[in-house]
Amino acid sequence: MFSVTVRDHIMVAHSFTGEVFGPAQRLHGATFVVDATFRRAELDADNIVVDIGRASEQLHAICGALSYRNLDGEPDFKGVNTSTEFLAKVIADRLADAARAGELGAGARDLTGISVTLHESHIAWASYERTL
Amino acid sequence: MFSVTVRDHIMVAHSFTGEVFGPAQRLHGATFVVDATFRRAELDADNIVVDIGRASEQLHAICGALSYRNLDGEPDFKGVNTSTEFLAKVIADRLADAARAGELGAGARDLTGISVTLHESHIAWASYERTL
Amino acid sequence: MFSVTVRDHIMVAHSFTGEVFGPAQRLHGATFVVDATFRRAELDADNIVVDIGRASEQLHAICGALSYRNLDGEPDFKGVNTSTEFLAKVIADRLADAARAGELGAGARDLTGISVTLHESHIAWASYERTL
Amino acid sequence: MFSVTVRDHIMVAHSFTGEVFGPAQRLHGATFVVDATFRRAELDADNIVVDIGRASEQLHAICGALSYRNLDGEPDFKGVNTSTEFLAKVIADRLADAARAGELGAGARDLTGISVTLHESHIAWASYERTL
Amino acid sequence: MFSVTVRDHIMVAHSFTGEVFGPAQRLHGATFVVDATFRRAELDADNIVVDIGRASEQLHAICGALSYRNLDGEPDFKGVNTSTEFLAKVIADRLADAARAGELGAGARDLTGISVTLHESHIAWASYERTL
Amino acid sequence: MFSVTVRDHIMVAHSFTGEVFGPAQRLHGATFVVDATFRRAELDADNIVVDIGRASEQLHAICGALSYRNLDGEPDFKGVNTSTEFLAKVIADRLADAARAGELGAGARDLTGISVTLHESHIAWASYERTL
Repeated sequence: MFSVTVRDHIMVAHSFTGEVFGPAQRLHGATFVVDATFRRAELDADNIVVDIGRASEQLHAICGALSYRNLDGEPDFKGVNTSTEFLAKVIADRLADAARAGELGAGARDLTGISVTLHESHIAWASYERTL
Repeated sequence: MFSVTVRDHIMVAHSFTGEVFGPAQRLHGATFVVDATFRRAELDADNIVVDIGRASEQLHAICGALSYRNLDGEPDFKGVNTSTEFLAKVIADRLADAARAGELGAGARDLTGISVTLHESHIAWASYERTL
Repeated sequence: MFSVTVRDHIMVAHSFTGEVFGPAQRLHGATFVVDATFRRAELDADNIVVDIGRASEQLHAICGALSYRNLDGEPDFKGVNTSTEFLAKVIADRLADAARAGELGAGARDLTGISVTLHESHIAWASYERTL
Repeated sequence: MFSVTVRDHIMVAHSFTGEVFGPAQRLHGATFVVDATFRRAELDADNIVVDIGRASEQLHAICGALSYRNLDGEPDFKGVNTSTEFLAKVIADRLADAARAGELGAGARDLTGISVTLHESHIAWASYERTL
Repeated sequence: MFSVTVRDHIMVAHSFTGEVFGPAQRLHGATFVVDATFRRAELDADNIVVDIGRASEQLHAICGALSYRNLDGEPDFKGVNTSTEFLAKVIADRLADAARAGELGAGARDLTGISVTLHESHIAWASYERTL
Repeated sequence: MFSVTVRDHIMVAHSFTGEVFGPAQRLHGATFVVDATFRRAELDADNIVVDIGRASEQLHAICGALSYRNLDGEPDFKGVNTSTEFLAKVIADRLADAARAGELGAGARDLTGISVTLHESHIAWASYERTL
């Protein structure tokens, strides 16, 4: 099994609902360093997993649509706790949509999985992994 | 599949028995930077894998019970080589016990796995992963 | 010249005023991983720069007073761009105040400098250094 | 499941064939920081996954045979795109050969898997994992 | 004293002349992760050291002009050992030229220093620092 | 001003004397990741700060003489608190002795400074810097 990972980041404001979140119920913010991993069983004719240029561009576009925003005010996240693990899924699902729409190139048809890790600090991170 | 990871560390002395360990047969020590990962298939009602505050506290308590000690003299490790991989299992098992005892909150009932990685230097680390 | 550094972090929301900030003029947020460095010419009688326990506690208290907040609404930062470099100075000055107030122990009288670095992402950070 | 990872690195020149590679079609180079992971279900009689000294030596020997070279001129890679993901497989397969040849010690008979990650920069890396 | 640092990278081929370089006399390559630091005594009217967007763009342009190349064939480096420390100076000097030419904005007139660090692997890096 | 840094590590046991050390008064241990930096004003005839091969070898030899030991029992450290900052000085001074003894090559005569940083965990490190 092969994989390729590219890294980008987002900087967002948000707040959480629920006692479990303690002081994070207040409006605060986070930098999430975002690692997106693409998996497949065999390499393509160019000997790669995915066009790393396209993968980076797609991840950058998806990060750009989330970054420098207050997620509490985004229609997509109305009434939702935008936890680190939840945002990992949002980004993984958007990358999966991009792959299916051909945005990662024809070779990306053979990708079998995507996982996304969001690092919220030097002592905490969260991941979501899915098939394609 | 979702996961959340929290980081802590321990600083211990120990020695190893067996020729394979070379100079590490002498009493020496290590800082282990400890990454504990909690896994589950779906997020809970708060949209999280686990209460990260409780998870950090449990990991800190488990690390505190190991740290600033000579492991050679600890009853739990009598006659045992406290290798990095072995200590990863010790910490993972103690976290699993805490989860089952409710120390990570009610939502932690749905955790399906725990893995622990111990970084012993910038060039070596070891992991143990288990189901719950 | 000796130094000791301890690390903590804050998670804040804020926005900036001024065209130079582009999309960061919108309310957004950041995790700042905070490194606080204490300097002195010679070690004290215990052979250390500073009581690392007290230094960590003071840094944690200062970080706690900033974290999980929208800095735009904090009286201390009214009408101020809370840039990474500016926040580095805020934390360094508060640590200097703590040192002078004896919060870092008697030995901290001989500290000659403090510097603070705030990492805002994997590709950007800022620092402020001052004498004591 | 237990694992142990050791880190080394190589510094190589190479070029790629295929439009997908853009400017990387020109002769250029890379440092690959190489992480080799060894897996097994249970620890051996010494309480370890593998003799970490031998594992490091084997990885160092394999890295040495690749490093400080122009891979375009190496007979093993004639007409091949030596992508990061491909090189991860090369190193994993050579480690698997070493394990089978007894170079990692008798205990390495019970290894069940090897994975190799090559970090090509702070924003991209690739992995290959295989059974033994 | 304040500073801001931004990170980028280059991937180059090169070889060295001189016995001191051992196997690095052969054509090989490196990824250099490049950290560029800008210093000034006081913050500007926007409360920043430098427009971080422009600083990142300039660094990216300078890195782009060096990357995906065999430095042995570049006219600028004819007969020169393009060591890590030397390349740090090349990039710092080009950033200084950009600052003086106004490419970092009007506020960059008050920058007092630039330093550049190039990380060549997880175990080696080099820096050059200069005044402006 | 130019500098080159190389990294190695040591794994030691030790204990501290003095209330300020709290639980670290017990016999415990640490991995210290060691960064040694060599400085000079101008590059030598080979366009380098120091022969990086020799610098790495000397650092490795100095680390080897400290590692896999209980520092409490070492004659050199009798009755001394082997704090992180103190050990940084020990290593820096030994590197300075090696430079003066010609162990870093003839070019090392023009080194003007050495600094050493010891990372004791992901949240604490200490440094010592000196002239040559």
